[in-house]
Amino acid sequence: MHEVVIAGIGQTAVGEKWDISLREMAFYALEIGINDAGGLRPQALYLANMLGPALAHQSHMGTLVADFAGLQGIEAFSVEAAGATGGVALRQAYLAVGSGAVDTAIVVGVEKMSDQTVSNVGAAEATLTDSDYEAEQGLTPTGQAALLMRRYIYEYDPPEYAFGGFPVLAHKNGAANKFAMFQKAIRPELYQRAGMVSEPLNMFDVAPAADGAAAVILTRPELLPKQFAHPLVRISGSSVVVDTLALHDRPDPLVFNAARLSAARALEMAGKTKHQIDLFELFDAYSIYAALTLEAVGYAQPGTGWQLTEDGRLELDGELPIMTFGGLKARGNPGGATGLYQAVEAVLQLRGDAGGNQVKNAQTALIQALGGPASTAASHVLESIS
Amino acid sequence: MHEVVIAGIGQTAVGEKWDISLREMAFYALEIGINDAGGLRPQALYLANMLGPALAHQSHMGTLVADFAGLQGIEAFSVEAAGATGGVALRQAYLAVGSGAVDTAIVVGVEKMSDQTVSNVGAAEATLTDSDYEAEQGLTPTGQAALLMRRYIYEYDPPEYAFGGFPVLAHKNGAANKFAMFQKAIRPELYQRAGMVSEPLNMFDVAPAADGAAAVILTRPELLPKQFAHPLVRISGSSVVVDTLALHDRPDPLVFNAARLSAARALEMAGKTKHQIDLFELFDAYSIYAALTLEAVGYAQPGTGWQLTEDGRLELDGELPIMTFGGLKARGNPGGATGLYQAVEAVLQLRGDAGGNQVKNAQTALIQALGGPASTAASHVLESIS
Repeated sequence: MHEVVIAGIGQTAVGEKWDISLREMAFYALEIGINDAGGLRPQALYLANMLGPALAHQSHMGTLVADFAGLQGIEAFSVEAAGATGGVALRQAYLAVGSGAVDTAIVVGVEKMSDQTVSNVGAAEATLTDSDYEAEQGLTPTGQAALLMRRYIYEYDPPEYAFGGFPVLAHKNGAANKFAMFQKAIRPELYQRAGMVSEPLNMFDVAPAADGAAAVILTRPELLPKQFAHPLVRISGSSVVVDTLALHDRPDPLVFNAARLSAARALEMAGKTKHQIDLFELFDAYSIYAALTLEAVGYAQPGTGWQLTEDGRLELDGELPIMTFGGLKARGNPGGATGLYQAVEAVLQLRGDAGGNQVKNAQTALIQALGGPASTAASHVLESIS
Repeated sequence: MHEVVIAGIGQTAVGEKWDISLREMAFYALEIGINDAGGLRPQALYLANMLGPALAHQSHMGTLVADFAGLQGIEAFSVEAAGATGGVALRQAYLAVGSGAVDTAIVVGVEKMSDQTVSNVGAAEATLTDSDYEAEQGLTPTGQAALLMRRYIYEYDPPEYAFGGFPVLAHKNGAANKFAMFQKAIRPELYQRAGMVSEPLNMFDVAPAADGAAAVILTRPELLPKQFAHPLVRISGSSVVVDTLALHDRPDPLVFNAARLSAARALEMAGKTKHQIDLFELFDAYSIYAALTLEAVGYAQPGTGWQLTEDGRLELDGELPIMTFGGLKARGNPGGATGLYQAVEAVLQLRGDAGGNQVKNAQTALIQALGGPASTAASHVLESIS
């Protein structure tokens, strides 16, 4: 494997985008990314999209976006692994560039949910579960998360509102991120008063489905001019791992085994321990996922992940900053693009370009995207090259 | 890039499979493939499926199939590029193994269309076109092919029934393939009497949508035991290229530019000319595609591809055998699995295990899968190692 660096990043503001199409959104992120990389032209495009076939009646999206961007003649296709889609697509670009077969690749993540009815989105999201055995019974991803939180409460009996620390922190960090869907801090009381979505999950335990597109450009450092516009960020660890698709097939549903394995393999590959990580963009699609992820990766004992939200330990100046630009909860969760927003945000941190969201002296970041309740986990270690 | 070989292959019989589920079909192909490879355990699974989200309400299929096969802990995800899906997934496995990041990978292609209404399948297939501009106007992939054939007839004025040589040859070869959907030769008169599907395409110009699953296992030769069960087949060329998604965006719709570029790049990588190819598994989803592909790859001048069906030139003992196991027309076209059936069939030829379909002394094969009217083209050169 050759060394692979991220030379360019692009993101569009996350939210409800009624006035712009799926392909336009993808194109904007792509164009910003290519400009950020000094006009580097990709030979391959990996398209990360989760629900386009179901929601936009559009498959074949890799070719759609490459074509719309005027990149006919390059290589392109779509990748899908539920919420892990963006991370999985990043890994394919990493392998293609690292193998030497492709010099420069762009990964574009895009998702559009707004111009749909709520029931359309719910039905489409249910296709991410084990359709014959879970969706068939009415189970959705949000239902899975509610089952997990209920089980967690039963097993570990945390205090009331124990999970509230995650959305409160996410909204605090999102307030400084101009690309975030929600740029407003919330007080704990708001969490405590929030209406239920799927008991015991309340409105603030669930990251909002959103529209958005993000892109990263990968190349080998020797292909870049010596005076490059940005500090380079190296991909030093990469791993995708799957678990059972259905929650009911797990020996212990409260163990996110794929999240554990995937992070461990990426860290090992990078030659880092989990304590050498300066920030961790974890996958807080639900607050219970954040807690279970911290436990799986080894930052907390089982049943105690929520305790890390106390005493500022996960804040930007804490020992393990997470969700540094607002996470899925405040930045928003644009499906297949989410893993690429994580990559873009980590690169901003490692470049020292994170503005009001900056983690001081950030050198090494871990990012992790989950498909379903860690049915798929994609982890990457990114490092600044100084 | 390290050398990559195909160590195992698996296929299920193509046809209408009412009594077996999507995941079971995928699992059978996977199990046959792993057994064929002497029990080699994959570290990564690339799942090629085209219409599962729309037809089976199932996304996240890489994880589904890996899980169902008891392969939790490995890497898995889904790839999609319309009809090119199988070829594109093969390339990802090739890059992963060739990079050294993955030792052994399995590519599983699966598609299930039978337990659907015809209108469901039609609507799902329309998502493979440019949905906002083509499907929106009622255009389907079959409609695109009909437009192309009409244009071809207008431009080149071939004789009546000029395209009939392709399905007649496909059915002749399919007769000896026990995995084929149609194992019966047809006479030219049957083609000439066939009812229209979408004028000027008749029933025999259109390969049947079908159910099926196929798998190939890739590894590096040094990881195999010295006394391996099968002759090894090397992947010596690999290329994916996209063109415009929509047919109306092409300067000349009768030029399959991505098919041309992709084949040329794969051949160049393999150090072969097109005349050193012993067989060519081309993508005869429609008879007009076969003609346009032969012209694009350079075996015939524009407007003359259909002439190659004369004088036995494309038969098993001819100068350029194509569709050696019946092609898409007689073997059947199981969507995302089709590109992997092509790979399996080429390996059987190169191993000398093709039985009644054997091309004598086959050493080098070109396979090509197309998404849409060559909106995406995936080409691979496979060679026997002797």
